[in-house]
Amino acid sequence: MTTTKVEPTVNGVEVAQLKQIVKDVRDEPSLGRSRFRVSNRWRGGSRNRSRIAGFFGAGQENDHPEPFTLDCDEPPVLLGDDQAPNPVEYLLHALAGCVTTSLAYHAAARGIRIAAIESTVEGDLDMRGFLGLTDEVPRGFQNIRVTFRVESDAPPDKLTELAKFSPVLNTVAAATPIHVAIEKAG
Amino acid sequence: MTTTKVEPTVNGVEVAQLKQIVKDVRDEPSLGRSRFRVSNRWRGGSRNRSRIAGFFGAGQENDHPEPFTLDCDEPPVLLGDDQAPNPVEYLLHALAGCVTTSLAYHAAARGIRIAAIESTVEGDLDMRGFLGLTDEVPRGFQNIRVTFRVESDAPPDKLTELAKFSPVLNTVAAATPIHVAIEKAG
Repeated sequence: MTTTKVEPTVNGVEVAQLKQIVKDVRDEPSLGRSRFRVSNRWRGGSRNRSRIAGFFGAGQENDHPEPFTLDCDEPPVLLGDDQAPNPVEYLLHALAGCVTTSLAYHAAARGIRIAAIESTVEGDLDMRGFLGLTDEVPRGFQNIRVTFRVESDAPPDKLTELAKFSPVLNTVAAATPIHVAIEKAG
Repeated sequence: MTTTKVEPTVNGVEVAQLKQIVKDVRDEPSLGRSRFRVSNRWRGGSRNRSRIAGFFGAGQENDHPEPFTLDCDEPPVLLGDDQAPNPVEYLLHALAGCVTTSLAYHAAARGIRIAAIESTVEGDLDMRGFLGLTDEVPRGFQNIRVTFRVESDAPPDKLTELAKFSPVLNTVAAATPIHVAIEKAG
Protein backbone atom coordinates (compact mmCIF):
# COMPACT_ATOMS: atom_id res chain seq x y z
CA MET A 1 0.00 0.00 0.00
CA THR A 2 1.32 3.40 -0.94
CA THR A 3 0.54 6.35 1.26
CA THR A 4 0.59 9.71 -0.46
CA LYS A 5 1.28 12.54 1.91
CA VAL A 6 -0.94 15.43 0.97
CA GLU A 7 0.47 18.73 2.20
CA PRO A 8 -2.33 20.71 3.74
CA THR A 9 -3.36 24.21 2.85
CA VAL A 10 -3.86 26.30 5.98
CA ASN A 11 -5.69 29.62 5.63
CA GLY A 12 -5.55 29.14 1.86
CA VAL A 13 -1.74 29.18 2.04
CA GLU A 14 0.36 26.28 0.71
CA VAL A 15 2.23 25.57 3.92
CA ALA A 16 4.86 23.28 2.41
CA GLN A 17 5.77 25.97 -0.14
CA LEU A 18 5.84 28.63 2.57
CA LYS A 19 8.19 26.51 4.68
CA GLN A 20 10.36 25.90 1.62
CA ILE A 21 10.68 29.68 1.09
CA VAL A 22 11.71 30.11 4.73
CA LYS A 23 14.29 27.32 4.37
CA ASP A 24 15.63 28.68 1.06
CA VAL A 25 16.10 32.19 2.45
CA ARG A 26 17.64 30.88 5.66
CA ASP A 27 20.13 28.82 3.62
CA GLU A 28 20.83 31.60 1.11
CA PRO A 29 20.08 34.98 2.70
CA SER A 30 20.57 36.89 -0.58
CA LEU A 31 17.30 35.30 -1.81
CA GLY A 32 15.50 37.56 0.66
CA ARG A 33 16.50 40.72 -1.19
CA SER A 34 13.52 42.22 -2.99
CA ARG A 35 12.88 45.43 -4.87
CA PHE A 36 9.37 46.64 -5.61
CA ARG A 37 8.63 49.54 -7.96
CA VAL A 38 5.92 51.61 -9.59
CA SER A 39 6.02 54.23 -12.33
CA ASN A 40 3.51 57.06 -12.30
CA ARG A 41 2.33 59.69 -14.75
CA TRP A 42 0.38 62.85 -13.89
CA ARG A 43 -2.88 63.29 -15.77
CA GLY A 44 -3.59 66.89 -14.73
CA GLY A 45 -4.94 68.37 -11.50
CA SER A 46 -5.76 65.70 -8.94
CA ARG A 47 -5.39 62.76 -11.32
CA ASN A 48 -2.44 60.45 -11.82
CA ARG A 49 -1.92 56.82 -12.74
CA SER A 50 0.62 54.23 -11.64
CA ARG A 51 1.80 51.27 -13.65
CA ILE A 52 3.20 48.27 -11.80
CA ALA A 53 4.91 45.90 -14.22
CA GLY A 54 6.96 43.64 -11.97
CA PHE A 55 9.47 43.38 -9.17
CA PHE A 56 12.73 41.74 -8.19
CA GLY A 57 12.39 38.93 -5.69
CA ALA A 58 13.38 35.32 -5.01
CA GLY A 59 16.63 36.02 -6.88
CA GLN A 60 15.02 37.01 -10.18
CA GLU A 61 12.96 39.59 -12.04
CA ASN A 62 9.24 38.74 -11.89
CA ASP A 63 6.76 40.25 -14.36
CA HIS A 64 3.08 40.52 -13.50
CA PRO A 65 0.95 38.74 -16.14
CA GLU A 66 -0.33 42.18 -17.18
CA PRO A 67 0.96 45.42 -15.69
CA PHE A 68 -1.40 46.64 -12.97
CA THR A 69 -2.85 50.13 -13.34
CA LEU A 70 -3.90 52.21 -10.32
CA ASP A 71 -5.56 55.63 -10.51
CA CYS A 72 -5.52 58.45 -7.99
CA ASP A 73 -8.03 61.26 -7.77
CA GLU A 74 -9.30 63.54 -5.00
CA PRO A 75 -12.85 64.18 -3.77
CA PRO A 76 -14.62 67.48 -4.64
CA VAL A 77 -13.75 69.15 -1.30
CA LEU A 78 -10.13 68.56 -2.27
CA LEU A 79 -10.73 69.88 -5.80
CA GLY A 80 -10.94 66.57 -7.65
CA ASP A 81 -13.62 64.57 -9.44
CA ASP A 82 -13.76 61.61 -7.01
CA GLN A 83 -13.15 59.08 -9.78
CA ALA A 84 -10.68 57.04 -7.72
CA PRO A 85 -9.31 56.77 -4.17
CA ASN A 86 -6.86 59.44 -3.09
CA PRO A 87 -3.27 58.71 -2.11
CA VAL A 88 -3.82 58.63 1.66
CA GLU A 89 -6.69 56.18 1.17
CA TYR A 90 -4.33 53.95 -0.84
CA LEU A 91 -1.87 54.09 2.06
CA LEU A 92 -4.54 52.91 4.54
CA HIS A 93 -5.57 50.15 2.11
CA ALA A 94 -1.93 49.04 1.83
CA LEU A 95 -1.80 48.83 5.62
CA ALA A 96 -5.06 46.88 5.98
CA GLY A 97 -4.08 44.48 3.20
CA CYS A 98 -0.57 43.89 4.46
CA VAL A 99 -1.54 43.17 8.05
CA THR A 100 -4.25 40.78 6.78
CA THR A 101 -1.83 38.83 4.57
CA SER A 102 0.83 38.78 7.28
CA LEU A 103 -1.67 37.35 9.75
CA ALA A 104 -2.89 34.67 7.32
CA TYR A 105 0.64 33.59 6.29
CA HIS A 106 2.29 33.62 9.71
CA ALA A 107 -0.66 31.80 11.24
CA ALA A 108 -0.48 29.19 8.45
CA ALA A 109 3.22 28.63 9.11
CA ARG A 110 2.38 27.86 12.76
CA GLY A 111 -0.67 25.71 11.97
CA ILE A 112 -3.06 28.31 13.39
CA ARG A 113 -6.33 28.18 11.47
CA ILE A 114 -8.20 31.41 10.77
CA ALA A 115 -11.80 31.40 9.59
CA ALA A 116 -12.31 35.10 8.94
CA ILE A 117 -10.50 38.44 9.13
CA GLU A 118 -12.17 41.83 8.95
CA SER A 119 -10.52 45.13 9.68
CA THR A 120 -10.91 48.87 9.70
CA VAL A 121 -8.00 51.24 9.40
CA GLU A 122 -8.44 54.95 10.00
CA GLY A 123 -6.02 57.83 10.19
CA ASP A 124 -6.19 61.43 11.38
CA LEU A 125 -4.73 64.10 9.16
CA ASP A 126 -4.70 67.81 9.93
CA MET A 127 -4.74 69.62 6.60
CA ARG A 128 -2.96 72.61 8.14
CA GLY A 129 0.24 70.62 7.72
CA PHE A 130 -0.27 69.88 4.04
CA LEU A 131 -1.43 73.44 3.36
CA GLY A 132 1.69 74.86 4.98
CA LEU A 133 -0.29 76.85 7.57
CA THR A 134 1.63 75.60 10.59
CA ASP A 135 4.62 73.47 11.53
CA GLU A 136 2.87 72.46 14.75
CA VAL A 137 1.11 69.47 13.19
CA PRO A 138 2.66 66.77 11.01
CA ARG A 139 2.17 66.98 7.26
CA GLY A 140 1.39 63.27 7.30
CA PHE A 141 -1.01 61.24 9.41
CA GLN A 142 -0.92 62.22 13.08
CA ASN A 143 -1.88 58.71 14.08
CA ILE A 144 -3.41 55.58 12.59
CA ARG A 145 -5.71 53.04 14.24
CA VAL A 146 -5.77 49.47 12.95
CA THR A 147 -8.64 47.35 14.33
CA PHE A 148 -8.93 43.68 13.42
CA ARG A 149 -11.65 41.16 14.17
CA VAL A 150 -10.29 37.65 13.67
CA GLU A 151 -12.18 34.37 13.87
CA SER A 152 -9.64 31.90 15.25
CA ASP A 153 -8.93 29.76 18.30
CA ALA A 154 -5.60 31.54 18.80
CA PRO A 155 -5.44 34.18 21.56
CA PRO A 156 -5.49 37.83 20.42
CA ASP A 157 -1.99 38.41 21.86
CA LYS A 158 -0.59 35.72 19.58
CA LEU A 159 -2.43 37.16 16.56
CA THR A 160 -1.15 40.65 17.37
CA GLU A 161 2.41 39.27 17.46
CA LEU A 162 1.89 37.76 13.99
CA ALA A 163 0.27 40.93 12.59
CA LYS A 164 3.39 42.85 13.55
CA PHE A 165 5.44 41.07 10.88
CA SER A 166 3.65 43.21 8.27
CA PRO A 167 6.10 45.09 6.01
CA VAL A 168 3.71 48.02 5.43
CA LEU A 169 2.96 48.33 9.15
CA ASN A 170 6.69 48.43 9.90
CA THR A 171 7.41 50.86 7.05
CA VAL A 172 4.82 53.34 8.32
CA ALA A 173 5.68 52.88 12.01
CA ALA A 174 9.41 53.39 11.44
CA ALA A 175 11.17 56.48 10.16
CA THR A 176 11.86 54.90 6.76
CA PRO A 177 14.65 56.61 4.80
CA ILE A 178 13.26 58.14 1.61
CA HIS A 179 15.49 59.74 -0.99
CA VAL A 180 13.66 62.28 -3.15
CA ALA A 181 15.23 63.41 -6.45
CA ILE A 182 13.50 65.84 -8.78
CA GLU A 183 14.97 66.39 -12.24
CA LYS A 184 13.85 68.75 -14.95
CA ALA A 185 12.43 67.17 -18.09
CA GLY A 186 11.43 68.53 -21.49
CA MET B 1 -19.36 97.15 -20.49
CA THR B 2 -19.20 94.35 -17.95
CA THR B 3 -15.94 92.60 -17.31
CA THR B 4 -16.17 89.06 -16.00
CA LYS B 5 -13.10 88.01 -14.11
CA VAL B 6 -12.30 84.44 -15.07
CA GLU B 7 -10.25 82.67 -12.41
CA PRO B 8 -7.55 80.68 -14.10
CA THR B 9 -6.91 77.01 -13.71
CA VAL B 10 -3.23 76.29 -13.13
CA ASN B 11 -2.03 72.70 -13.53
CA GLY B 12 -5.68 71.67 -13.83
CA VAL B 13 -6.30 73.00 -10.31
CA GLU B 14 -8.95 75.66 -9.61
CA VAL B 15 -6.64 78.17 -7.97
CA ALA B 16 -9.37 80.43 -6.57
CA GLN B 17 -10.96 77.44 -4.83
CA LEU B 18 -7.60 76.27 -3.54
CA LYS B 19 -6.87 79.72 -2.09
CA GLN B 20 -10.34 79.75 -0.54
CA ILE B 21 -9.61 76.43 1.21
CA VAL B 22 -6.34 77.85 2.56
CA LYS B 23 -8.17 80.97 3.80
CA ASP B 24 -11.01 78.97 5.37
CA VAL B 25 -8.64 76.66 7.26
CA ARG B 26 -6.47 79.59 8.37
CA ASP B 27 -9.58 81.38 9.71
CA GLU B 28 -11.09 78.25 11.28
CA PRO B 29 -8.31 75.72 12.03
CA SER B 30 -10.76 72.97 13.03
CA LEU B 31 -11.75 72.74 9.33
CA GLY B 32 -8.34 71.18 8.73
CA ARG B 33 -9.17 68.08 10.78
CA SER B 34 -9.67 65.07 8.52
CA ARG B 35 -10.15 61.37 9.07
CA PHE B 36 -9.68 58.85 6.28
CA ARG B 37 -10.71 55.21 6.58
CA VAL B 38 -10.92 51.88 4.83
CA SER B 39 -12.56 48.59 5.77
CA ASN B 40 -11.05 45.34 4.60
CA ARG B 41 -12.12 41.72 4.39
CA TRP B 42 -9.87 38.70 3.92
CA ARG B 43 -10.76 36.46 0.97
CA GLY B 44 -8.44 33.55 1.82
CA GLY B 45 -4.69 33.12 1.37
CA SER B 46 -3.08 36.13 -0.28
CA ARG B 47 -6.33 37.83 -1.24
CA ASN B 48 -8.21 40.60 0.51
CA ARG B 49 -10.39 43.52 -0.50
CA SER B 50 -10.80 47.04 0.86
CA ARG B 51 -13.90 49.17 0.64
CA ILE B 52 -13.52 52.92 0.86
CA ALA B 53 -16.89 54.57 1.33
CA GLY B 54 -16.05 58.08 2.47
CA PHE B 55 -14.09 60.26 4.87
CA PHE B 56 -14.44 63.16 7.27
CA GLY B 57 -13.02 66.44 6.00
CA ALA B 58 -13.84 70.13 5.52
CA GLY B 59 -16.01 69.89 8.66
CA GLN B 60 -18.33 67.18 7.36
CA GLU B 61 -18.75 63.53 6.37
CA ASN B 62 -18.12 63.06 2.63
CA ASP B 63 -19.34 59.97 0.80
CA HIS B 64 -17.69 58.83 -2.39
CA PRO B 65 -20.27 58.58 -5.23
CA GLU B 66 -19.78 54.79 -5.12
CA PRO B 67 -17.58 53.04 -2.55
CA PHE B 68 -14.17 52.28 -4.06
CA THR B 69 -13.02 48.67 -4.04
CA LEU B 70 -9.33 47.72 -3.99
CA ASP B 71 -7.98 44.17 -4.18
CA CYS B 72 -4.71 42.77 -2.86
CA ASP B 73 -3.04 39.61 -4.03
CA GLU B 74 0.54 38.32 -4.11
CA PRO B 75 2.63 37.04 -7.03
CA PRO B 76 3.33 33.30 -7.39
CA VAL B 77 6.80 33.48 -5.75
CA LEU B 78 4.94 34.85 -2.71
CA LEU B 79 2.28 32.10 -2.98
CA GLY B 80 -0.50 34.12 -4.58
CA ASP B 81 -2.27 34.21 -7.95
CA ASP B 82 -1.03 37.65 -9.10
CA GLN B 83 -4.55 38.92 -9.71
CA ALA B 84 -3.88 42.33 -8.11
CA PRO B 85 -0.99 44.42 -6.74
CA ASN B 86 0.39 43.38 -3.39
CA PRO B 87 0.28 45.63 -0.31
CA VAL B 88 3.82 46.99 -0.60
CA GLU B 89 3.15 47.93 -4.24
CA TYR B 90 0.05 49.84 -3.08
CA LEU B 91 2.24 51.69 -0.59
CA LEU B 92 4.67 52.77 -3.34
CA HIS B 93 1.72 53.82 -5.53
CA ALA B 94 0.32 55.90 -2.65
CA LEU B 95 3.69 57.61 -2.37
CA ALA B 96 4.04 58.32 -6.11
CA GLY B 97 0.48 59.61 -6.34
CA CYS B 98 0.69 61.80 -3.27
CA VAL B 99 3.95 63.49 -4.22
CA THR B 100 2.53 64.11 -7.72
CA THR B 101 -0.66 65.73 -6.42
CA SER B 102 1.24 67.74 -3.82
CA LEU B 103 3.55 69.09 -6.54
CA ALA B 104 0.65 70.00 -8.85
CA TYR B 105 -1.40 71.72 -6.11
CA HIS B 106 1.40 73.61 -4.37
CA ALA B 107 2.81 74.76 -7.69
CA ALA B 108 -0.67 75.94 -8.74
CA ALA B 109 -1.05 77.94 -5.51
CA ARG B 110 2.21 79.76 -6.36
CA GLY B 111 1.41 80.26 -10.05
CA ILE B 112 4.10 77.77 -11.13
CA ARG B 113 2.99 76.02 -14.30
CA ILE B 114 3.84 72.36 -14.78
CA ALA B 115 3.52 70.68 -18.18
CA ALA B 116 4.28 67.08 -17.21
CA ILE B 117 5.21 64.93 -14.23
CA GLU B 118 6.56 61.40 -14.42
CA SER B 119 8.00 59.41 -11.58
CA THR B 120 9.37 56.10 -10.46
CA VAL B 121 9.28 54.94 -6.87
CA GLU B 122 11.19 51.87 -5.76
CA GLY B 123 11.83 50.32 -2.40
CA ASP B 124 14.17 47.65 -1.06
CA LEU B 125 12.75 44.99 1.20
CA ASP B 126 14.70 42.15 2.75
CA MET B 127 12.26 39.26 3.21
CA ARG B 128 14.35 37.93 6.12
CA GLY B 129 12.61 40.56 8.24
CA PHE B 130 9.09 39.56 7.24
CA LEU B 131 9.91 35.85 7.54
CA GLY B 132 11.22 36.35 11.08
CA LEU B 133 14.69 35.00 10.21
CA THR B 134 16.63 37.91 11.66
CA ASP B 135 16.14 41.11 13.61
CA GLU B 136 19.11 42.66 11.82
CA VAL B 137 17.04 43.99 8.93
CA PRO B 138 13.79 45.96 9.16
CA ARG B 139 10.54 44.13 8.55
CA GLY B 140 9.47 47.06 6.37
CA PHE B 141 11.21 48.81 3.49
CA GLN B 142 14.89 49.43 4.20
CA ASN B 143 14.83 52.50 1.99
CA ILE B 144 12.71 54.07 -0.75
CA ARG B 145 13.84 56.11 -3.75
CA VAL B 146 11.47 58.63 -5.30
CA THR B 147 12.61 60.01 -8.67
CA PHE B 148 10.59 62.67 -10.45
CA ARG B 149 11.00 64.22 -13.90
CA VAL B 150 9.05 67.46 -14.05
CA GLU B 151 8.51 69.70 -17.06
CA SER B 152 8.41 73.23 -15.61
CA ASP B 153 10.33 76.50 -15.61
CA ALA B 154 10.69 76.30 -11.84
CA PRO B 155 14.08 75.19 -10.47
CA PRO B 156 14.30 71.60 -9.14
CA ASP B 157 15.06 72.87 -5.63
CA LYS B 158 11.76 74.74 -5.55
CA LEU B 159 9.88 71.69 -6.86
CA THR B 160 11.56 69.48 -4.26
CA GLU B 161 10.41 71.87 -1.53
CA LEU B 162 6.82 71.62 -2.83
CA ALA B 163 6.96 67.81 -3.16
CA LYS B 164 7.84 67.61 0.52
CA PHE B 165 4.36 68.78 1.52
CA SER B 166 3.06 65.30 0.57
CA PRO B 167 1.12 63.64 3.42
CA VAL B 168 2.08 60.11 2.34
CA LEU B 169 5.77 61.06 2.02
CA ASN B 170 5.69 62.53 5.52
CA THR B 171 3.76 59.59 6.97
CA VAL B 172 6.31 57.09 5.65
CA ALA B 173 9.35 59.23 6.49
CA ALA B 174 8.21 59.84 10.07
CA ALA B 175 7.72 57.29 12.84
CA THR B 176 3.93 57.53 12.62
CA PRO B 177 2.11 56.26 15.73
CA ILE B 178 0.01 53.21 14.84
CA HIS B 179 -2.29 51.58 17.35
CA VAL B 180 -3.02 47.93 16.53
CA ALA B 181 -5.99 46.21 18.22
CA ILE B 182 -6.95 42.63 17.45
CA GLU B 183 -10.24 41.29 18.77
CA LYS B 184 -11.70 37.82 18.52
CA ALA B 185 -14.80 37.47 16.41
CA GLY B 186 -17.25 34.63 15.84
